[in-house]
Amino acid sequence: MIKALIFDVFGTCVDWRGSVARAVAGALPGVDAPAFADAWRAEYDPAMARIREGGRGYIALDDLHLENLFRVCDRFHATCADPETLNRAWERLDPWPDVAPGLRALKTHRIIAPCSNGSIALMTRLARHAGLPWDCILGADIARDYKPKPAVYLASCAALRLPPAQVMMVAAHNGDLHAARAAGLGTAFVPRPTEHGPGQTSDLTQEADWDLIAPDFNVLARLLNA
Amino acid sequence: MIKALIFDVFGTCVDWRGSVARAVAGALPGVDAPAFADAWRAEYDPAMARIREGGRGYIALDDLHLENLFRVCDRFHATCADPETLNRAWERLDPWPDVAPGLRALKTHRIIAPCSNGSIALMTRLARHAGLPWDCILGADIARDYKPKPAVYLASCAALRLPPAQVMMVAAHNGDLHAARAAGLGTAFVPRPTEHGPGQTSDLTQEADWDLIAPDFNVLARLLNA
Repeated sequence: MIKALIFDVFGTCVDWRGSVARAVAGALPGVDAPAFADAWRAEYDPAMARIREGGRGYIALDDLHLENLFRVCDRFHATCADPETLNRAWERLDPWPDVAPGLRALKTHRIIAPCSNGSIALMTRLARHAGLPWDCILGADIARDYKPKPAVYLASCAALRLPPAQVMMVAAHNGDLHAARAAGLGTAFVPRPTEHGPGQTSDLTQEADWDLIAPDFNVLARLLNA
Repeated sequence: MIKALIFDVFGTCVDWRGSVARAVAGALPGVDAPAFADAWRAEYDPAMARIREGGRGYIALDDLHLENLFRVCDRFHATCADPETLNRAWERLDPWPDVAPGLRALKTHRIIAPCSNGSIALMTRLARHAGLPWDCILGADIARDYKPKPAVYLASCAALRLPPAQVMMVAAHNGDLHAARAAGLGTAFVPRPTEHGPGQTSDLTQEADWDLIAPDFNVLARLLNA
C-alpha cells in the first residue's frame, strides 16, 4: 500500500541545533553558540512565510539562511569573517544515531526521499555528509514553495508518479503531519525530544492518531517491514 | 575544479535495447523483439521534439513512452494485454557491467546525478533496479524541458548551486556533449559501441576534443580521481 516514504529532515533526521552550534562556536568565538543556533533557526519560519504567502518569489533556503545569518549576527553584535562558509554548516548537520541504519532498512522495501524545505543542493550535500541513502531528493525545490503548503507534499508525490495515499510522510513535528494528512498522505510520527535542547516543550508527543508512531527509524522499519 | 558529474542514462549507463527487447519478448510472443525495441526507441526523439519546440507542454517521458508503445504496437500488428506493465520495462533496464562500481568510485570525490530525459520517477526506480548510487536526480523534470535544450543542463547545474564550469556531463553520445559544452559544462565521452546492437554505426568515436575520453566508468574514475 505505502510505496514511498518521504521525510522531514531538520530535526527529524539530523540534529541541526547541536551541529550548527558547533560550527558557530568555531566561527564566532565568545558568542553563546546554542543561543545563536536557536536565534538563527527562529528566523527560518518568518523568512519562508513571506514566500508562502506570495509576498516574495521562491528563493532557495540556502539564500534565506544567509540573509538570516546577517540578521542574527547584528543582533548578537558578532562579526563573521566568512558568512558563506558558516552558512554551509546547514550542509554538515549530524544525523541522529538511528537514522542511517533505519533508512537503509526502510529502503529495502520502499522508495525513500527527503521532503524538506531545504534545496536540492543543500539536501544533496547534507546526505553525503550524514550518510543518508536517499533514492532521490524531493521537497521545496520541486514545488518552488515551502511546507506546510500542500503543494510541496503533492509535488513530491507527483514527482514519484504516486497518489498521496501510497506515500507516507515521516516527521518529528505534528504540524508537518497535519499538513501531510490534509493533502492525503499517510503519516508517521518519530518524536525527537531533544531537537530544541534539554528544555524542549513542543512536539514531545503525538497530537493526533497518526498512522504510525515510533521512537526511532529502526523501530519504524520493523513496523513497516513486518 | 569539477565538483559534480552528471550523466546521460539511456545508452550511457544502461543497455536499454537488450533490456527492453527482453521485456517485449515476454509480453508480445512472436514479435521480433529487438526490432520492436528499436522502433519504440526511434519514436523517442520525435515525441520530445514537439515539446522542445513549444508545440506541446511538458509531459514526462513515462507518458511519451506509453503513447509511443501504442503507436509501435499498431505498426507491428501486436496486441498488448497490459501496456502499462510493459511500459515499466524502462524502469528495469540493466546497467553496463562497469557502471555500478564506476559510479561508486566517482561518488567518493564528487556529487553524481543523472541528467537524463527520464522523469524523477523513472530515474528513481531505474536506480533501484540497476544499483546506481546517485546523490540526487536531475534532468528533464527539473527543467520541464528535454535535452539537448540548454535549459536542461543549466537547470541541473543550478539545482546543485554550481556554475556550469564546475559540472561535467558524461555521455556516450556526441550530440549530448556538444550541447553540454555549448552550455558551459565540462565533457566526458564514454562510448557504448553496442548500444544499438552489433551493427551500430553512430557514436563509435569522439567527434570533438572532449575534456575526457574513457572506455568505461572505471577508467573514468581513475582519470578523475588521479
